[in-house]
Amino acid sequence: MFQLDDQLAKDCHLITAWPLSQVLLMDDRRYPWLILVPAKPGLCEPFDLNANDQQQLWREAAVVGDFMKTRFRADKMNIAALGNVVSQLHVHVIARRRNDASFPSPVWGVGQGERYAEQERAALLAWLSEALSGLTP
Amino acid sequence: MFQLDDQLAKDCHLITAWPLSQVLLMDDRRYPWLILVPAKPGLCEPFDLNANDQQQLWREAAVVGDFMKTRFRADKMNIAALGNVVSQLHVHVIARRRNDASFPSPVWGVGQGERYAEQERAALLAWLSEALSGLTP
Repeated sequence: MFQLDDQLAKDCHLITAWPLSQVLLMDDRRYPWLILVPAKPGLCEPFDLNANDQQQLWREAAVVGDFMKTRFRADKMNIAALGNVVSQLHVHVIARRRNDASFPSPVWGVGQGERYAEQERAALLAWLSEALSGLTP
Repeated sequence: MFQLDDQLAKDCHLITAWPLSQVLLMDDRRYPWLILVPAKPGLCEPFDLNANDQQQLWREAAVVGDFMKTRFRADKMNIAALGNVVSQLHVHVIARRRNDASFPSPVWGVGQGERYAEQERAALLAWLSEALSGLTP
């Protein structure tokens, strides 16, 4: 049975559940940063999914990426399946701006995360939940 | 008309051309590191491709990733479309090992690249070219 990795559960908040993936908000206000976690057990790599699910995963990443690029006025999207620390398959979708905390470096391992204030996070989650539910791929 | 970005052309070597992407070897012997560049002009994000080409891109990335994980005995694959420096759409496929130069950090911006010796590179390119041509997705 699928169970979200403990570290992801600690760092993120559930926005919505799409056909394949849980869509999570990374609790780091330095970047608009979402994470897709295919809700199937025992996955490490994208190619551990069957061909149909791989297509669904990347469709979901594309919808999130396109949405975030527009809504957060990103200069560039970063879409990445790394998993060197958390091995459970997850795909980062991060909106990058030229003036953000680490551009043009990747975000991982640069500086310290900054959690959202509770009210700010609740408002963002509500907005994202409504917007992304309407875009379900 | 498609033209490979100057920086990619300087840092990489062509292994083979697949239906959508040029498959390149990053000239950095610290990691088995391949890069897919869809050979169409004007692309920045994966979702700039039409739906069919997106599927083909991720199929190509999965074939490269699966091949590299086995052949290079990787502990984890890193598959990423970042493009903060080189905006031309390209997907990194990197075989990571627990004892490599930066694990568990991502590879970008950590330490200095180390180019292959000429003979080592030629042998690797010949082997990859033959192996990947036989796996054309």
